[in-house]
Parts: sequence; C-alpha cells; structure tokens
Amino acid sequence: MAEYDLVIRNTTIATASDVVKGDIGIAGGRVVALGERLDKGHREVDGTGRIAVPGGIDAHVHFDQDTADGSVFCDDFESGSRAAAAGGTTTIIPFAYQNKDQPLRDAVNKYHARAEGKSLIDYAFHVILSDASEKIMGQDFTALVADGYTSFKVYMTYDDVKLTDREMLDALAAARREQAMLMIHAENSDCITWLTERLELKGMTAAKFHATSRPFVVEREATHRAISLAELLDVPMLLVHVSAKEAMHEIQRAQARGLRVYGETCPQYLFLSEEDFEKPGDEGAKCVCSPPPRGTDNQEHIWTGLSANTFQVLSSDHAAFRFDDVRGKKLPGARESFRKIPNGVPGVETRLPLLFSEGVNKGRISLQQFVALSSTNAAKIYGLHPRKGTIAVGSDADIVLWDPERKVSLTNSILHHNCDYTPYEGRELTGYPVMTLSRGEVVMDEGRMSGSAGRGQFQKCDRPEAARPRGRPLIDPSIFN
Amino acid sequence: MAEYDLVIRNTTIATASDVVKGDIGIAGGRVVALGERLDKGHREVDGTGRIAVPGGIDAHVHFDQDTADGSVFCDDFESGSRAAAAGGTTTIIPFAYQNKDQPLRDAVNKYHARAEGKSLIDYAFHVILSDASEKIMGQDFTALVADGYTSFKVYMTYDDVKLTDREMLDALAAARREQAMLMIHAENSDCITWLTERLELKGMTAAKFHATSRPFVVEREATHRAISLAELLDVPMLLVHVSAKEAMHEIQRAQARGLRVYGETCPQYLFLSEEDFEKPGDEGAKCVCSPPPRGTDNQEHIWTGLSANTFQVLSSDHAAFRFDDVRGKKLPGARESFRKIPNGVPGVETRLPLLFSEGVNKGRISLQQFVALSSTNAAKIYGLHPRKGTIAVGSDADIVLWDPERKVSLTNSILHHNCDYTPYEGRELTGYPVMTLSRGEVVMDEGRMSGSAGRGQFQKCDRPEAARPRGRPLIDPSIFN
Amino acid sequence: MAEYDLVIRNTTIATASDVVKGDIGIAGGRVVALGERLDKGHREVDGTGRIAVPGGIDAHVHFDQDTADGSVFCDDFESGSRAAAAGGTTTIIPFAYQNKDQPLRDAVNKYHARAEGKSLIDYAFHVILSDASEKIMGQDFTALVADGYTSFKVYMTYDDVKLTDREMLDALAAARREQAMLMIHAENSDCITWLTERLELKGMTAAKFHATSRPFVVEREATHRAISLAELLDVPMLLVHVSAKEAMHEIQRAQARGLRVYGETCPQYLFLSEEDFEKPGDEGAKCVCSPPPRGTDNQEHIWTGLSANTFQVLSSDHAAFRFDDVRGKKLPGARESFRKIPNGVPGVETRLPLLFSEGVNKGRISLQQFVALSSTNAAKIYGLHPRKGTIAVGSDADIVLWDPERKVSLTNSILHHNCDYTPYEGRELTGYPVMTLSRGEVVMDEGRMSGSAGRGQFQKCDRPEAARPRGRPLIDPSIFN
Amino acid sequence: MAEYDLVIRNTTIATASDVVKGDIGIAGGRVVALGERLDKGHREVDGTGRIAVPGGIDAHVHFDQDTADGSVFCDDFESGSRAAAAGGTTTIIPFAYQNKDQPLRDAVNKYHARAEGKSLIDYAFHVILSDASEKIMGQDFTALVADGYTSFKVYMTYDDVKLTDREMLDALAAARREQAMLMIHAENSDCITWLTERLELKGMTAAKFHATSRPFVVEREATHRAISLAELLDVPMLLVHVSAKEAMHEIQRAQARGLRVYGETCPQYLFLSEEDFEKPGDEGAKCVCSPPPRGTDNQEHIWTGLSANTFQVLSSDHAAFRFDDVRGKKLPGARESFRKIPNGVPGVETRLPLLFSEGVNKGRISLQQFVALSSTNAAKIYGLHPRKGTIAVGSDADIVLWDPERKVSLTNSILHHNCDYTPYEGRELTGYPVMTLSRGEVVMDEGRMSGSAGRGQFQKCDRPEAARPRGRPLIDPSIFN
Repeated sequence: MAEYDLVIRNTTIATASDVVKGDIGIAGGRVVALGERLDKGHREVDGTGRIAVPGGIDAHVHFDQDTADGSVFCDDFESGSRAAAAGGTTTIIPFAYQNKDQPLRDAVNKYHARAEGKSLIDYAFHVILSDASEKIMGQDFTALVADGYTSFKVYMTYDDVKLTDREMLDALAAARREQAMLMIHAENSDCITWLTERLELKGMTAAKFHATSRPFVVEREATHRAISLAELLDVPMLLVHVSAKEAMHEIQRAQARGLRVYGETCPQYLFLSEEDFEKPGDEGAKCVCSPPPRGTDNQEHIWTGLSANTFQVLSSDHAAFRFDDVRGKKLPGARESFRKIPNGVPGVETRLPLLFSEGVNKGRISLQQFVALSSTNAAKIYGLHPRKGTIAVGSDADIVLWDPERKVSLTNSILHHNCDYTPYEGRELTGYPVMTLSRGEVVMDEGRMSGSAGRGQFQKCDRPEAARPRGRPLIDPSIFN
Repeated sequence: MAEYDLVIRNTTIATASDVVKGDIGIAGGRVVALGERLDKGHREVDGTGRIAVPGGIDAHVHFDQDTADGSVFCDDFESGSRAAAAGGTTTIIPFAYQNKDQPLRDAVNKYHARAEGKSLIDYAFHVILSDASEKIMGQDFTALVADGYTSFKVYMTYDDVKLTDREMLDALAAARREQAMLMIHAENSDCITWLTERLELKGMTAAKFHATSRPFVVEREATHRAISLAELLDVPMLLVHVSAKEAMHEIQRAQARGLRVYGETCPQYLFLSEEDFEKPGDEGAKCVCSPPPRGTDNQEHIWTGLSANTFQVLSSDHAAFRFDDVRGKKLPGARESFRKIPNGVPGVETRLPLLFSEGVNKGRISLQQFVALSSTNAAKIYGLHPRKGTIAVGSDADIVLWDPERKVSLTNSILHHNCDYTPYEGRELTGYPVMTLSRGEVVMDEGRMSGSAGRGQFQKCDRPEAARPRGRPLIDPSIFN
Repeated sequence: MAEYDLVIRNTTIATASDVVKGDIGIAGGRVVALGERLDKGHREVDGTGRIAVPGGIDAHVHFDQDTADGSVFCDDFESGSRAAAAGGTTTIIPFAYQNKDQPLRDAVNKYHARAEGKSLIDYAFHVILSDASEKIMGQDFTALVADGYTSFKVYMTYDDVKLTDREMLDALAAARREQAMLMIHAENSDCITWLTERLELKGMTAAKFHATSRPFVVEREATHRAISLAELLDVPMLLVHVSAKEAMHEIQRAQARGLRVYGETCPQYLFLSEEDFEKPGDEGAKCVCSPPPRGTDNQEHIWTGLSANTFQVLSSDHAAFRFDDVRGKKLPGARESFRKIPNGVPGVETRLPLLFSEGVNKGRISLQQFVALSSTNAAKIYGLHPRKGTIAVGSDADIVLWDPERKVSLTNSILHHNCDYTPYEGRELTGYPVMTLSRGEVVMDEGRMSGSAGRGQFQKCDRPEAARPRGRPLIDPSIFN
Repeated sequence: MAEYDLVIRNTTIATASDVVKGDIGIAGGRVVALGERLDKGHREVDGTGRIAVPGGIDAHVHFDQDTADGSVFCDDFESGSRAAAAGGTTTIIPFAYQNKDQPLRDAVNKYHARAEGKSLIDYAFHVILSDASEKIMGQDFTALVADGYTSFKVYMTYDDVKLTDREMLDALAAARREQAMLMIHAENSDCITWLTERLELKGMTAAKFHATSRPFVVEREATHRAISLAELLDVPMLLVHVSAKEAMHEIQRAQARGLRVYGETCPQYLFLSEEDFEKPGDEGAKCVCSPPPRGTDNQEHIWTGLSANTFQVLSSDHAAFRFDDVRGKKLPGARESFRKIPNGVPGVETRLPLLFSEGVNKGRISLQQFVALSSTNAAKIYGLHPRKGTIAVGSDADIVLWDPERKVSLTNSILHHNCDYTPYEGRELTGYPVMTLSRGEVVMDEGRMSGSAGRGQFQKCDRPEAARPRGRPLIDPSIFN
C-alpha cells in the first residue's frame, strides 16, 4: 500500500495536454501517483475548486546579476525566488553572465555562489555568452553542457556583450554539436547606437525616446538575421522577448518553412505600450525595457502569437531596478538621457496572474496553453522535462493550486519582490495562485510564504530534444562539425 | 486499497505532452490510477520495452457508407473496426451521410443501424451535410448537437453533396451558434468538372488524368474560400485531407492571423505521389483519391506541416474499394475513365505504423507529436477529450502498446481490412502496435484479434472547446445569430 | 516641308516613360512630328508652362447603360463624354451590357446606337458577359474580337449578371483562345446576399450598412478565386475597382509568382472612406458603390499600390445617379434599405484632377506614372496602343495640356456631368487641365467646351499584347483549346 | 527648314513606353525630331526592318579598377567600351574605387585619369564607398553629388571595402540628404568567411565550393538587412546583382509595402547555374562570380522578376579576368582554393543580345521592357534621364539598330573584349545589334567598329528623382538630418 507524504485531493489537474479530475499523491518530493481515489497521505490538501497546474517555470529572470553598465538589480536570489513562488512559479532560470575573456566555468561558479543559500525554489542557469571565441568555447562549452548547463544566451546588441555574426556562427555550431539551446536577444546594435546618438544630439532624451531609438524594424532585422544564421547551419534557437508583430511574423515565416525556431514573449508586450512612456513626470521610465513595448494595436497581435502557438514561452524577463534608486535622486544620469535608464521591468511575480486572468479567463488561450506557455514548453526547451513542467508520475511535485475565481487588485504592496513599483499597478485580476508546492513542500499558502531560503536546488538541464536539428541543412554539417 | 482489473506495469507512458515511466491501473474500463508502483491488478501486463499511448482516433473513415455515385465501400463497421484495432486505433469516427432532403436525424439513425452489433471498438459519427437548408438545419441540427453529434462535414465538390457558399454560410452560422465543428472537403467543384469534361473529350481517361483534373490550384482556391467564409463569421473549422503545399500555406496564413483554422492530412500525401499513377496496367487506379497525391517534393512539405504543427490531425480517410471488384472486371466503367474510378484508398490499419516508423523513428516528429496527431488532437477537436485521446486519470482505458523496434514488412496479407490491396505494399517499417486495449479489454495481442463484434460503443461528442470562436469577428455576430 | 494643322509649341511633353521639352506637330488628327523647333502650323498653341500629356483614357465608365435592377444612370454618352473631356479624358470605354440570352452582337449594336451622334470624344466598348454559355460564346465571341471588341467584363456578383466559376472558366478559355482581356468584378455574391438578408432582418438598413454587407474578406475571397481560375488556365486578367488592401495583396502575390494579373483602382478608394457613410441625413448614400470605400488607413495602402505599380490603371467607374431622383423622393426604396440604393458614384470628370493634385503634386507618383495610370496602360491593356495612350509619331493627337499650378476648388457647379453632386465637393486641388484636344481638335479650352456631339468615333481595339499568356500553364492548354 | 546631320528613316522606334514607326532626325549629336516623314539629312540610314532602341546603359561594369585582392581586370576603358558598343551599349557606368582613408575626390580623379582618352562611348561613375566615416563623407560627398557623381556603391562583404551597418546608416543618411542613389552588394560577410575557412580546412577548395560558401541564405539575409536599414531612414536604394529567388522575394516584400527599393540582376543568373561549376577541369572557374549562380530552377524565378518588374535593371557586372592568366599558370593560387579565384565574369558585350534573344524573342518580356531594363530605368535611377535612356526630342542620339531576326552563334572570337573566354560560348541567338550610334556618330556598323578611343565623354549625373524618399519615415527625419 502506497505511502504518501501529501495528497492533493479532488482537484482539477491540468497539464499541457489534459485537464482531468483526481488526486495527486506525493512522496519524496515527487508525484508518485495520480488517481481517482488515492490512499490517505500524511498531509491532505483539499483541492476542491482549485486547479492544480505544474509550477511555473520563469525561464528569463535576472537576479543579482552583473550588468554591462554597472547598474544593480534590486532582486537577488532570495527576494526574487520568494516573489516567484508567491506568483505561482517553482523554477527559475536566471543568467550566469560571462564577462569578456572570462572562462565560462568561472561565470557559472560565480552565480552558483550568489544563489547558494538563497533560493526558495529550484533553479537552473542559462549562460550569457559574451565571448564566443574558440578558446572560450572549446575550453568549457562541452563540459558545461555535460554538467547541466545547456542553454546559452546571445546578445546582438549592448556593447559589452554583443556577439558578431561570426561569433554567433561559432556559437551556433557549438550548440549544434552539443545539442544545446541558444537564446537570442535580437536587436540591431548599430541602429540603436546610431539613433541614440542623434537623439541625444537633438536633446531628445526623455524616457519616451527610448522607444524611438529602437523601432520595430531594428527588432525585425535582427530577428531575420538570427534566423538566417540558424537556418544556414540548421540549428534550433529561441528568440527571447519578442515585442513587435513584424518580428513575430519573421518567426512565423521560419516556422512555416519547417525551421525549429522558438519564440518567447513577455507580459510587458501584452499589457504595456508606447503610451505608457507618455505618463507624467518620470513615470515613463518605469516601462523602459528592451525591446520596448510597441503601439497598443501591437498587443493584440502578440496575443494572437500566443493563441496560435507562434510563441512557446511566456517569461517575465524580470530585470528590476528600484525607481527610487535608479530613476530618482541616486542616479541622476537616468534623467539626463533615456540611454542611462537601466533597461528592465519587474515581473516575476505578476507574470502568471496576468496571463491567467487576461488569457485563460478572457478566453484568449486554453488552460492547457496556459500550462504549456508558463511551464511545460520551457521545461522541454531547456532540458528540464519531465522532471519539471508537468504533473505526471515521477515528476517533481512542483505544483501550484489556483483559485480561478479569486479577485485580486494588483498593487505593489502585495508583491514580494524588492522593487518599489510594479508597472501593472491597479490592474484588477481574476484568478490567483493560492498554494505553491516545491518538491512537495508548501512554500506559499494563501499568500503566506514558508520554507527556508536556500532550500531551492540547482537543477542540471539535459540536452533538450528541442535543440536537436530536424531539418535538411543547407550546408553539409560535416563541413563545420 | 485500490482494486485494478488490469495493471500495465513498468511501461513508458506517452501523452501529447509527456513521456514518463510508470504503471497504469485500469478498473471498470477506465484509467483509475497512474503510479510508480501500483498495487497488483487482477491481470498484469508487462509493459517493459513498450510504449503505451492513447489508442489512436481515426477521425476520418468511411465504413458501409452510401456514396454519391453508388459505389460500394468494401469495409463495414466490422471489418473496418477490426482493422483499425489491429493498427493501433481504438476510436473511429465514420460518417453518417445525409441524402439531399433527408432529415439529419434519419441519416444518423441509419448509420447507427449499420454500426449496431458490428464495431469492435468505440465510435462516434460525423454527419455529412448534403442539405444545409434552413428547414433541415433548424429541424435537427440543434438537437443532434445536444445528442452528441457535434461535427459536420461539408463538401465543396461532388455534385450530389456539395454545398454552395451560401449554404456553407448557413452551416457556419449554425456551427457557431451550437459550437459544432465543421470539416471541409476543399476542392473547387466547377474546375474539376470543367477539366474532366475536356480531358474526356480528348480521350485522356487513364487513371493518371485523375491528378490532372484536380491540380493544386483547385485545392488552394477552395481552401482559401472556406477560410474566408469562416473568417467572415468568425467560426473555427477544420480542413480535411490537405494534400498540396499551397493549400497548407493558406492554412498557415490563416493561423498566423489568429484564426482557429485546423488542418488534417493523411498518409497518402506523405507516402504516395503522382508518380504512383504512372505504374503499369491498372495499378495507378490503386492510388486514386481526392485530392490526389502531388509531386514527390510536395511530400516533404506535408511532413513539415506535421512537424510544425500546421496540421493537428493525421487521419486515414479510409475509403476502400476492392481492386478486383471495382477496378477490375465488375466495374468496367473504371477503365473507361478516371472519372468513374471510385475515389479513395484503404488506410485505417496502416495509418499509425506508417506515421510511427517514418515520423517518430526517423526523427521528423516527437513521440508526443505522434500522440497528438494520432489521437489527442482529434479527441479535442471533436469533443471526445479527455474521455478519449489521452492516458489520464478518468480516461477510458483505450491504450495501445507499441514495440518501437518491431520490424514489419507491410503486405496486404497481414492486414485485417476487407480490401484486396494496400497502396503501401512492400514498405519496411520499424515500430508496430503489439497490444490494443479498448476500455480496458484486450482486443489485439501480438496480432491476434479478440473481443466480440459489437462490443464497441457509440460515443456522444461534447461541444468541442476547439469550436469556440476566439477572434474578433469582422461582423457583429448579433447580425446573424 | 511639313504642313501642320496645329503645333503645340514649347511645351513639356510627358509620356509613360519620358518627360521632355519640345513642340508637337499635328496633322490629319495625328501626331506627325515631335521636335525641338518644328515648322509653323496653321494654328499655334503656346504650351509654355503647360504639360502636354496623352489624353486620359477612362476605361471604366457606365453611360446610358441598362442595369440589373433597372436604375437609370444620369449620364448618357453626350453628358458623360463632355464631362470626360472637361476633366482631361479623350477616350472612354463604356460597357455594352449583354442581357441573359441576348446574343453578344445584339448587345454591342444596342450600345452603338446609344453612342451614335452623342459622344464628343472617341470611345470603345467593353462587353459585359452575363451569359457565357457555349452557345453565346461560340456564336459571337470570336467575331466580336475580330471586329474590335477585345475586352469582356465578368461579374462575380449581382444576380442578373454574375457568372459561376464554370462560366468564368469558359470565358477564360475563350479569352485565352482569342487573346482577349477579361475584367473581373470580384466580390463573393453569396456572402453579400447572405449578409444583406440578415441586416435587413435586423432593421439595419441605413446607407452605412452597405459597407457592412461587403466587408474586405468578401472582396479578397473573390479576388483570390478569380486569380486561381486564371492561374489554372494561364490567362491574363484585370481586377477592376480594387478597394481593400487585402485584395490588393492577393494581386501582389499573383504578380510576384509571375502571373499576368492586372489591377485597377478608382479615386473613391483614395479619397472616400467608411466614415463618409456616417454623414448626417442621406448624405451617406452619395458614397454607395461596390466594393465600398474602406477605412481611412486603407487609403494609404491603395496609394502604395499606385506608386508601387501594383495597379496599372486608375479609372473612375463613373456610375452616376442623381441624388434628387434616386436617393430623394422619387425612389423612396433607397431610404428603405441600402440594398435599393443604386451602386455607383460620379467621377469621370474629377478622376484626373484628383490624381494629379494628390498624386503628382504631393509627390506620391511621378508624372510618368500619372500618364501610365491615366492613359497609357489602359491603352495597352485594351488594345488601343499606340494609337491612343501616348504622344508619339503616328498616334492620334489626343492631347491634354495641364497647368500644374492651377488652383481649383472642386464643386459640382463647375462640373459638366449630369449629376447633381460630386462626392469630392469642396476639395482644393492644385493642377488642372486647361486644354483638351481630340484627334487634333480642341474640345476644351480653359473650361470652355467646343466640338459637336457625335464627333467622337468608335475605336476598334486590337488583341492586346497584355492578354497574351506568358506563363508556364498548370494544364497543357491543348486540353482545353 | 530643319537641317539634320543624320536621319534614320522608316524604322521601328522603341521606348520604354511605346513602339511606333517613323524617322529619327539627328543634329548636333542629339535627337531633334521624330516624325512620319522628316526632311532629308546629310546622312541617311535605312531603318527598314530594324528596331531603333535607346543605346544600352550598362550600369554595372568594372574597367581598369583596383580590387581589394589585387587581381587585375583584363578590360580597360578602351577594350571595355569597344565591347560595350559592339553589343549595343552606348553608356557605361564603371566604378571609381575609394581606398580606405582615401578622399572620395581623389578616387574619382584617379578613375577619370584612367578613362581619359580611352572610352569609345559616354560614361559616368559610381563611387565605391569603402570608407563612410563622417570625415570622408562630410569632406567630399556633398561636393561630388553637386559635380555629377550621384550614385555610391556599398559592399556588405569583402574585407577591404565592406561597411558596417553603422557606416551604412551614415551612407544612407548622406544619400537621403543629397538625394543620391545607393547601390548595395548584399551578402553577409561573416557567413562567407566562416564557411570559407571551414571548407578550406576540409580541403574542399575546388571552384564549385565557391557556391557552397555563399548559399542563398547569405544573400537573403543581407538583402533583408539592407532593406531594413533603408526602411528605417526611408531612403531609396538599389540591390545589385540579385541572384537568389529568396533575395528577390525580400525585394518584392519591400516593394509591396511601398518602399522605393530597386533591383538589378545580371545575365549570369539567367543563363548560368551551379551545374556550370561541375564542368571538367578548371572550366568551373569561368563562372565564379558573387553572388554565385544558383540552381537551374532559380533561373526561371529571375526571369519572372524581370517580367513582373521586380527588377528595374539588367546589368552585366562585367568583371573580366583572363582565364589563361588568372586561372591558369600565372596565378596558381586560383587552383589552390576557390577563395583565390578572382570573382567576376565578362558580359558587357553579350548582355543585350542574350536578353533580346531569350527575353524578347521568346516572349518573356516585351520590347518596351527590354528598353526599360537595358537602358531607360538605369538612366532614371542614376540621374541620366532623359539625356540618356530614351529616344525623345532633345535626348542624346545614342541609338542602336537591332535586326530582330539576325542569327548569331555566340563565340568568344566575335567579341571585342580583352577576355579569352565567354561563359556563354556556343549559344545560338536570334536578334543582334547591327548599328550603334553614340551622340549621332556611328561607332559600330554591321560589326565594324569605328570612332576614336577617347571620343566618349564623361556624363554628369543629376540627383535622381528615383532617389527621392517617398514614404512615411519610421523616424522623424529631422532627427538625423
């Protein structure tokens, strides 16, 4: 007879495929049984009226990370992971940032140290490649992939980190060889710099000119270029934080011709717009992120990209700076020019409530799509599935119970991050997470946090099947392998 | 302590989302538990080395059906359902064919009578609408949907059954109102008739001219037209048996602009081509179906449509005629003109082995995609999910065990249909179903069939969520509701 | 030494290709010389500061024509041709309307009788095919083409005149055989009827619901269908009065794949919009035409279609009904339902001033494009070139002098048509025709009309080179020729 | 009474718009009259049976030019211009190559010196921008445009000359300000280098791997990028030598959204293919040019681009190297690796006969399109129109008489260039130029060359109307002007 540490009883269980009724039996931190009437557990949770979903995976967060410009994120692994858990997320994948010339392994170790003893929930790492030279790549890349770091981020913009096309080809070839996943920040760097200089020369330095300096064509160009390089070598890749419908359209074209090109978008492209930059005073600065939110009509196109499965992942791109510190007195530069406003908005805690309320409850996406976009697809794309990203026999018991009818008025005071604002202040939501389990342990119950900092464990990622080339390469791969 | 009629032990369990290891506990014909180590069942099946998938749903089969031209299908519900089960399918959705002026209810009753006592596995019905007049639609449509007939097929070609655009609008409006799913056979009727007449006048009557009479543009046109009508009223629909990449491209365009347009394709468009019409003697006639297979280069595009999720469903469109009867001496007309060759190929038994071998084992699609394409998506699109189409708590125990490494040489003698040929004669496959359970009962075990004819039950279909309009209608729906 | 009846001296001469300075020598109604300093003519016209362009060809006008619904156009060949000449047009191509069952020859003869003794300028005829049965087509089509009637209009909507797809194929095959040009009115008839019935049922009968009854998708669908039929048989065709950007996009797709598909648009799609239907009282009725003007953002797309050469022809589709008669008291039906408002707007006189002022003077198109769109391309597409449509040695001396800086405030009182309104009332224009020559005879000079009614001559059209198939047919043409 | 130095009598006169019969009166090197029966000239040429077209403008030739890799073109202005004239071309626009850091003015002066006393026909210069730094651009760009150098070429590949995206933006902004035309060689440099290195590492160095090192995606990427940069600043531009249908498709997309993006292609993309690289021995090297010819199926797409007006210009990109010198013994490096084979094929003399024979006589393009593609459009795009590029009053008498039925077997021995091969050896052509007039002087008559080297004059180019921005800029131009 089975022994369960905990049974979630009589609930609605949703996966990326199915929504059924039943009980979830948990033991040793894992789901060991799903059934119509499981035996009694040591602890019982009544799931009636709740929806049990796989805990969210936020595959794009910046916690306690070095930045190119020295600006300081206000969330570390402790506050960030707590906010994540409060918002229904049970796995985070922040970035280990490689400085130029730094061995990849050193970068990874550095961020392990920063996470150590801090994270409330499980985490993996993406590695930001700021140096893709053969020396660096040869040295560590293969070993890192073997050790569970299987996703690498490439920037096409930001001076201290961006790769040239040639370096991207090196990274793509390495990713192909090792079956690792590349994540691409696609904006044309030269265009941004060129426009920024001219805007500053004209004295057009207010926050709203941030958007002017990065119009949609800057994103579309880089998106098409990244896809072309991947197409050349037949390597899967994911475009992060897609903002403009024109960039999304390039992804659709690529998918239609059979390329394994994945797309991620973020709540800021569904809920914010250029109009937010026009807010009085410094308020516009609260929405500065890259790529910038576009026109309000663009939002509906991004929703279409979610409902039509153009996008596989909705992440937060949580990159939080305190408004008081950065945009206020302490960093007066941010008032001198939009160029000096640190890029990024907070969102790790609000990501899923926003998506649930406006996506599921408004009928734009199904509950299964919610699960896929918030958790399952990221688990697959980054090599964590089926340990993470689903509620299935053998999976980690990372489970979130949602009350689909809970009314919440979003306001920063109810959030757990270390940021002093949310760009979604005042939004009325329907549906909210009411219990979060991480490997079977309740870390949030009706908004009350529990569990010790540091209980979260590092997760090694597998080589993702999603990173396996599937196409007919334009170039015989033996040429570059 | 749980009581299981049967436990499949230690197997790989695949759903459209997940692939995990575990046991499946079955009682009362349903899956009542999934677990790491379930209690012992009355019967135990060793699933080691097997993959347990949701039994296939063949959502497009013609059994014992009236036809416009009076030709006679060689498979009835008995032979057809047996072949289906042998090939890993546990649910079939044949058609109830409405004759012009016939009340829809009468058509449904007629086909119930034909299925009665015959089917080895469960079945539902699509209703072919050959008369969408208000009288017919008002009379029965609403009641039928309430009674579990929630999908309706519309032909844009074939004289005795095709609907005009206006009738299609009536059908679409009814489908929208009732949240029913329309299935569209999209070929431009006038073009086919016009070309056929001219071909016959020129004496170009060999089987291969069947393809000449229905070039890709005939399919693309009707596909775009059907999509446009659906777009006008904002109604989801599914395009059946998509053959040409150009038609597929229209579906991709529709999906990219956010329409709920679904696509089905069939093995004949992956494995057959125009070249098969050139075979010596009457052999070409074995591949006559509509739309016809296209050029060999087109096949890879259809594979892309499967891997890129353009298509949701792979069905057989099993429409089998005995070569001896129809194309041989008994129906000499078939030799006079391709026009008189009954349209259709057998495929209900070979559908899944072909897809598994060439799709999963060749790496073109993942195992989860196999499940989705062969079972889950059809269940969702036609309102059978989650009772059918998945292996989850509470689902019917329609489960098929596959041996992924089994080598089989396809030949008609091993098949269970009542047809005297298979167009895939001689293909070497890897991977084959070795056990089929229908509601927990073994109906096939290592090729041996069991279970009584008639044990299959009619399945009422729900209003599918997939048929719920999601877009922003071009026309205020209050105008036509 | 040359003898010129008239020399236009020292002017700017514009063709579809070139803009040069020089003299134009005219004798016998034709251009017999172009030169830097021609000998003196019997009459001299000072062209200094003027632009001499080929007289406009308005290839889409309805004068004194029967209509399906019996409504009566207010312009006959006399008032219509006078208005045309006043607006810079020297050739008109109205329609000879075939009633069902009427021999084509009879239709042509009837309209010859109506034009006889009336037209101030030259004219040819398009023939409206309301019956494309083999009887009709075989009987007259070949003979008519030989006699100079080489363009045929096909309606896809309007009950009394529309052709089925099959009839369109017959017409296309005949056009291909005879190298005639088909003009297509592309709207899906069933959709319009279906929507109209429902709108009327709901009491939504105001003029603005005319637009609701014919949304863009209705036009896009028919455009794609017409193109598909033409593609099937590899026959050039022209889509008339393209209104929606989505329809235009279908034309662009067709052109990009190498089809000889031509497009025409009209001023009403550049200058009117759905908003005009919202005007107070009955004013909205003044803009009722089919397809309807779209949203204001659509206008800029249509301009793009002109500047990008997607469209070859800008015609007026002059179809004028007096507001007093039809929309006022005499035809109360028009107030009962938009369905009864006769379709059409006046425009034969305003077409070119609008295009010149907003196109050339605003820099959207070049002067050469103005010539091409207003005259040369129509001459080529309808077999009148180089007799008409250019200023070249041997061409008819159909020449219009424009004062590119003339300021004119458009108001119906300055127009010469027989209609009691212009939808462009109050527009301020820059650039206006100041002299019109028809075969060397001045018929307008600074707004004063001269020349006798009936001086205009019927022009036989050649088989247009533009109607010669150029592609690789999908179907071997021997099959249908 | 007019005095003509020469009259071409009774000929067919073709412009980009019109084809008419008449006489051409020439005086002072210019066309001073066109007429039905002009007065007698001092010299009379019988044009019966001939077609008089505007002399060809070859807007893309490399004569006596420095190259990045030091390889030496075999044609200078004397041999090159002679060959051009023999092949029906009367104006050439070679390149003045700016070395890095070299003032633009110096580059221009250098090439003037090389042309001095050599050219048989008129010429202008494009300036190759290898340094677009503000210093260089500010110094000379404005002055050069004022002095008649209004087109500038930008390379996106070749190490010694390529510009970064940022430099391209500088060049685009300068071009916008001065209304100059940019010509873009669009291939992704990094991709080519990266692939080349890997091919060489694998010992894949034969000529055919030249094509492998520059697959279509390399061209498509750069084409889309160049278009995006131009779109950002709203600047017209021309893509030179477009080879791949995928790159052409990007141009079509840009044109369809209203951008002034022009395209040039070359005979090598109509008549050569990858298969030519497979020829035995070193023969493959004869077809090495960049971008490389693509598959044979691609050729028909490029023809479609010509007939559909996607391309405005057909140039030769004459870049001739003697096979004996370069690919033979004298430059053994060329046998070591495709990388060392100088890029380019001869074509200045064969360009128009190939286009006439296979384009006009095969019915793929009209005679007017031939004129437009070979002469008029280049004149307009580069600011030489209407002095060059047409036969009109006041134009230079650059006229070529073609015998449309002349049969010629192409072989290098009949050509006038200084190259020892033609890649079109052995082609049978119908239609050939039989007389070439340059400013009224016969420089070729039935294959006999006349006229002194150096009689050709430098032509100042105007700011082309085609370079005037027409769109709605994404960025307020005041920001960067």
